[in-house]
Amino acid sequence: MATINTNYQKLSPRYLFAEIARQVNAYQAAHPDTHLIRLGIGDVTQPLPNAAIQAMHRAVDECACASTFRGYGPEQGYDFLIDAILQHDFQPRGIHLSPSEVFISDGAKSDTGNIGDILSTQNIVGITDPVYPVYADTNIMAGRTLHSIPCHADNAFTGDIPSEHLDIIFLCYPNNPTGAVMTKEKLTLWVNYAIQHKAIILYDAAYEAFIQDDRLPHSIYEIEGARQCAIEFRSFSKTAGFTGIRCGYTIIPHALKSTDGVSLNRLWNRRQCSKFNGASYISQRGAEAIYTPEGQQQVRHTIQHYMRNAHYFHDCLEQLGLTVYGGQNAPYLWVSTPDGEDSWSFFRRLLTDAHVVVTPGEGFGPHGEGYIRITSFGTWEDSLEAMERIKKLYK
Amino acid sequence: MATINTNYQKLSPRYLFAEIARQVNAYQAAHPDTHLIRLGIGDVTQPLPNAAIQAMHRAVDECACASTFRGYGPEQGYDFLIDAILQHDFQPRGIHLSPSEVFISDGAKSDTGNIGDILSTQNIVGITDPVYPVYADTNIMAGRTLHSIPCHADNAFTGDIPSEHLDIIFLCYPNNPTGAVMTKEKLTLWVNYAIQHKAIILYDAAYEAFIQDDRLPHSIYEIEGARQCAIEFRSFSKTAGFTGIRCGYTIIPHALKSTDGVSLNRLWNRRQCSKFNGASYISQRGAEAIYTPEGQQQVRHTIQHYMRNAHYFHDCLEQLGLTVYGGQNAPYLWVSTPDGEDSWSFFRRLLTDAHVVVTPGEGFGPHGEGYIRITSFGTWEDSLEAMERIKKLYK
Repeated sequence: MATINTNYQKLSPRYLFAEIARQVNAYQAAHPDTHLIRLGIGDVTQPLPNAAIQAMHRAVDECACASTFRGYGPEQGYDFLIDAILQHDFQPRGIHLSPSEVFISDGAKSDTGNIGDILSTQNIVGITDPVYPVYADTNIMAGRTLHSIPCHADNAFTGDIPSEHLDIIFLCYPNNPTGAVMTKEKLTLWVNYAIQHKAIILYDAAYEAFIQDDRLPHSIYEIEGARQCAIEFRSFSKTAGFTGIRCGYTIIPHALKSTDGVSLNRLWNRRQCSKFNGASYISQRGAEAIYTPEGQQQVRHTIQHYMRNAHYFHDCLEQLGLTVYGGQNAPYLWVSTPDGEDSWSFFRRLLTDAHVVVTPGEGFGPHGEGYIRITSFGTWEDSLEAMERIKKLYK
Repeated sequence: MATINTNYQKLSPRYLFAEIARQVNAYQAAHPDTHLIRLGIGDVTQPLPNAAIQAMHRAVDECACASTFRGYGPEQGYDFLIDAILQHDFQPRGIHLSPSEVFISDGAKSDTGNIGDILSTQNIVGITDPVYPVYADTNIMAGRTLHSIPCHADNAFTGDIPSEHLDIIFLCYPNNPTGAVMTKEKLTLWVNYAIQHKAIILYDAAYEAFIQDDRLPHSIYEIEGARQCAIEFRSFSKTAGFTGIRCGYTIIPHALKSTDGVSLNRLWNRRQCSKFNGASYISQRGAEAIYTPEGQQQVRHTIQHYMRNAHYFHDCLEQLGLTVYGGQNAPYLWVSTPDGEDSWSFFRRLLTDAHVVVTPGEGFGPHGEGYIRITSFGTWEDSLEAMERIKKLYK
């Protein structure tokens, strides 16, 4: 008889954002006239850059005419987009990759979830705590043993280099949920650990566009040796508002090999050719347009908008006496709950008393307890209003 | 040390369509002035229905304005598309499904490849031979044992009901590559087998729009009991030319449960929420428009265009004395090689002597030997010219 993957039974039945939505919807239903301000889920609100809009219109028109129609594209993505990525995201930082080291996809969530396909289920996986739930859940689904890497204020939310052996390490910097960043010095320690242990770092750089401090690395390949031990994930979701358009990419250097010499690039290529049919042509043309001068300017404008919110939140919340992390090079703020209040209680208090939705830190892992996550993806008006409401709680 | 999924080492190093592309490109490079007619890969050539074009333009415009911008959509797809699917693809055939039984995706290839995530790797998987390579390759990647279901003229390319036990059975009808169809009577035998063996049928109905004979089932759920044993995959790729747009869907009925009562719908929902972020909003709006009266008419027009090619091929090739299957309710023709010539040899002869690219049947499995696959997705002019060229070989 057909049997299921029983690893799914080990997953927590409660999915964080579904649980928050349940509580928020229940409150809204009971108080239909209340205007809730949502600083919880990390979705963007600003429209797409005009360059991407125009490019997608052109792509749609191409599909209307037999002579310009595009059918199946390369599973790895179109060269026009891969070339733009290499030229703008890597070459200016001294990173020279081959086009065949780039795989365009429908987003970083798919890739960080699917990358496990090519890796043994026997690998021990290091997961930071708190963490974006996808890394943990997808590895539980595969039956891998997870090892927690606690991230707290004392290690700047970048984890202590483990004394034990790990095979795979998920790192996400700028970090979701803490908004923490990784310095070159600290990232070098992680790369050295990976080389020493023949481990693989899965580096999620989905938020690199929010980095304001020039000293911080945007790519793990800025670190010597990283090509031998790291896969990097990038996304257009937060950079350019592509959460609904779906496009991202993954870098797997040819130098990354298993201990018996198998190229992980080749395995991933085979995986993508068998289980994926390329990202939408329209989405890829939209992503390409982000790299035009006009597109770059528009992206910067949008990022500045969100970072203005983040900086404002940071100042306001500190003035209220709260301890605030992140929000300097990331769209997320990680805020200590007052007087050790538990994070779900503070979440509910902000919902009912300030009508502001945040994310309770405990939902990201045990070390998230005592914090809430605030996202800066709202409008400026909502951001001002949200802080006014929270200030009133402290009067 | 990090280790790979060694099942990947068991895959054939030769990927069928890559190998064909290699041989075709080498020939084209040596004969740059030759106009090759490509009846090999199953990609469409007709432009998208105008209804979809207009809907996608509107969707792009919505993304240009904050008040209509759409970010993350539901991982399961938007209700507007799910409702259109249920209303047009299922209700008229007496199949009443709940919206939560439909999962919109970026295409049937992703879903047929990823569905294994929720199933045990211990399941024995029945794969028809010849077969669309994705079913076999993705199960080899997962380490499952494959069991071949030979499909040949004597069983109308629909396989004999196995005498042994299988846990999972992949069926694709109208069939790729043979163009064969499954009658209600034969599909009932398969469903009864699955119920008796507590097996799951993974039914790929990507080509249902090509069915011309009203007696044939479009969905496996037209068969009594199928909700308890079958998952169905659908695609807009061939129906509406979405090979580059990326949209499809998968049906998992709530009645489909593992022997210990676990809902596969719930598992797949969890899988999609953790490893997928929804299909592109623009693609989903394009797919919705296919169900408008204008869209339906345009889709029928395109399908008729391809079926005109198919019927013409069928007649011409039979007149040449070849034995021809398929092409009546499917865009594929499955043609016996003359005088028992091996399929790669006939492929090369058609390439070099007629400048027509087909697919050697052996590439789809051992039982594909002795056949070639011809696709009808070209233009009418190319289709006429291709047959003229092949006729000349027989003069």
